[in-house]
Amino acid sequence: MRGTILYAPGDIRSEILPDPTIVEPTDAIIETSATCVCGSDLWPYRGINTFDEPWAIGHEYVGVVREVGTAVTTVRPGQFVIGSFIASDNTCPHCRAGYQSGCAQLAPVLGCQAEAIRVPLADGTLVPTPDTPSDEMLPDLLALSDVMGTGWYAARAAGVAPGHTTVVVGDGAVGLSAVLAAKELGAERIIALSRHADRQVLAREFGATDVVPERGAEAVARVREMTGGVGADSVAECVGTDESLTTALDCARQGGGVGFVGVPHDVALPIARLFRNHVRLQGGSAPVRNYLPDLISRTYAGNFHPGRVFDLRLPLADVAQGYRAMDERQAIKAFLIP
Amino acid sequence: MRGTILYAPGDIRSEILPDPTIVEPTDAIIETSATCVCGSDLWPYRGINTFDEPWAIGHEYVGVVREVGTAVTTVRPGQFVIGSFIASDNTCPHCRAGYQSGCAQLAPVLGCQAEAIRVPLADGTLVPTPDTPSDEMLPDLLALSDVMGTGWYAARAAGVAPGHTTVVVGDGAVGLSAVLAAKELGAERIIALSRHADRQVLAREFGATDVVPERGAEAVARVREMTGGVGADSVAECVGTDESLTTALDCARQGGGVGFVGVPHDVALPIARLFRNHVRLQGGSAPVRNYLPDLISRTYAGNFHPGRVFDLRLPLADVAQGYRAMDERQAIKAFLIP
Repeated sequence: MRGTILYAPGDIRSEILPDPTIVEPTDAIIETSATCVCGSDLWPYRGINTFDEPWAIGHEYVGVVREVGTAVTTVRPGQFVIGSFIASDNTCPHCRAGYQSGCAQLAPVLGCQAEAIRVPLADGTLVPTPDTPSDEMLPDLLALSDVMGTGWYAARAAGVAPGHTTVVVGDGAVGLSAVLAAKELGAERIIALSRHADRQVLAREFGATDVVPERGAEAVARVREMTGGVGADSVAECVGTDESLTTALDCARQGGGVGFVGVPHDVALPIARLFRNHVRLQGGSAPVRNYLPDLISRTYAGNFHPGRVFDLRLPLADVAQGYRAMDERQAIKAFLIP
Repeated sequence: MRGTILYAPGDIRSEILPDPTIVEPTDAIIETSATCVCGSDLWPYRGINTFDEPWAIGHEYVGVVREVGTAVTTVRPGQFVIGSFIASDNTCPHCRAGYQSGCAQLAPVLGCQAEAIRVPLADGTLVPTPDTPSDEMLPDLLALSDVMGTGWYAARAAGVAPGHTTVVVGDGAVGLSAVLAAKELGAERIIALSRHADRQVLAREFGATDVVPERGAEAVARVREMTGGVGADSVAECVGTDESLTTALDCARQGGGVGFVGVPHDVALPIARLFRNHVRLQGGSAPVRNYLPDLISRTYAGNFHPGRVFDLRLPLADVAQGYRAMDERQAIKAFLIP
């Protein structure tokens, strides 16, 4: 089957690899109907995250169950399923509390830029859709597997509530998804920090009421000005740099919430600032599994189109082109068709 | 009138000072019925916090209004009042959101280890009690002015809720108050980290179900063991050191809450750990003004005795003895009678 290997920074190849097989009785094998390239895949592609061995990359997927292990009871061959990029048992105390991305048994789902994948802990990880969706629905459903689920967590961790003024830091696919999440969760004013024209357009389509092209201290000054000096009720940080987190913290009002989902890279948390501003801070990898049933329902109900973040469609074999386009910011997110 | 000046580390003196007077029309002058020494007063007393000029110290008080400025409308001479250690207008957006300690006009209340004090922003800061309380009630009411209000915020910021397993890091007066707060807020199991016999006794009186004498990684291991490997639902951090905050973060379960009220001293927040554990973190100086009406009601209702943290009673003139006793851990907290 066709899969994708990152050999070294910048060296990504589509290759014919061995078909995945059941290893544990809790595994399932999925034939992917669609997969994609994640902003976080660019960290190793750019050589910022180092790695020692060729990497079967990709962690986002939707598809049809081909085979299940003997211990799997809740999904069966032929079903269309979505799963998180983190496999979870969905029964441990952390899962039951809604933090499946902190599952006692958590395992990554690997090698998803491929025609078929092995998903561990299938019962706890995969959620079947109500039916086999049309091709038109695939982008919306695929987005739930990571970016939309992550944007949702960013908004939830930030405590977005009806009537809020919410700031979203970062205009990548996750930041844009956080805008959509804030809209769905009832934020009244959504200020997107974005300096790219195409992303600004999508941010507004997703519900942003204001776009601030400035960054850092200038962005903070603009947000302060727009909120009468008070700051935002909730801030979703979707980048993961020191500047973006500082910006997020400084945009929040006294006692406001900051949700951070950008994997932190060289970030020094300013505790004195947290102390002074009483900000509620929560971050981490999103418990996507927790949100999948709700997000699938919203997608099936229509009027919820997180798949709009995909602005480049490619055959899986052309995966390298997807990485290049995203690396050069020619595309927000590349959708890959096996 | 008699007041207290910290001249240099270790050099604290009770002296006759000029009577305070109304400076701003929003001021009130209070004749203190009781005041006390705070654990945070020990930072400059020990020379850990530096200062350049003689310091009229103390920030906790209850007493009777002697005089008010022309703009004061909600308190009047003769009323018994309690106020926070931070003066606030109680009308700005931050105050209205419940964060009076982040008030747009906030001002410290200074020189409270004295027979009389000037309280800025009297309308927004002072809360009258239902009547003039008996002498027996003074310790309980005085505790509300800082330590009990701060312990309350620690528990609230940690998200303590009915049924929780709550850990309290720190067995000073604030930590003990956080135990009492967790009990009042419905925590089912309260694990106090305390290694001092007298404080352990008070922690249990306040509602601790378990006492862990270990510190640091050993304390974390004990808490993990006691919670079936899961960790605590909520953790109140009441010390302010790097070790105590790390301990607090490591005691929390996935998605658990950590409230921190110890003023951070050389603390490096481990963002990777926050990311991994999905901990909700909130800290800062407590919005005591927000909690005063509720805490006064609880005190008047009986069965709520935060004043038990005072285990040394002294005339105000002997304030130096109070500092010494607290510095040497001979006393938890010194109550001063003007």
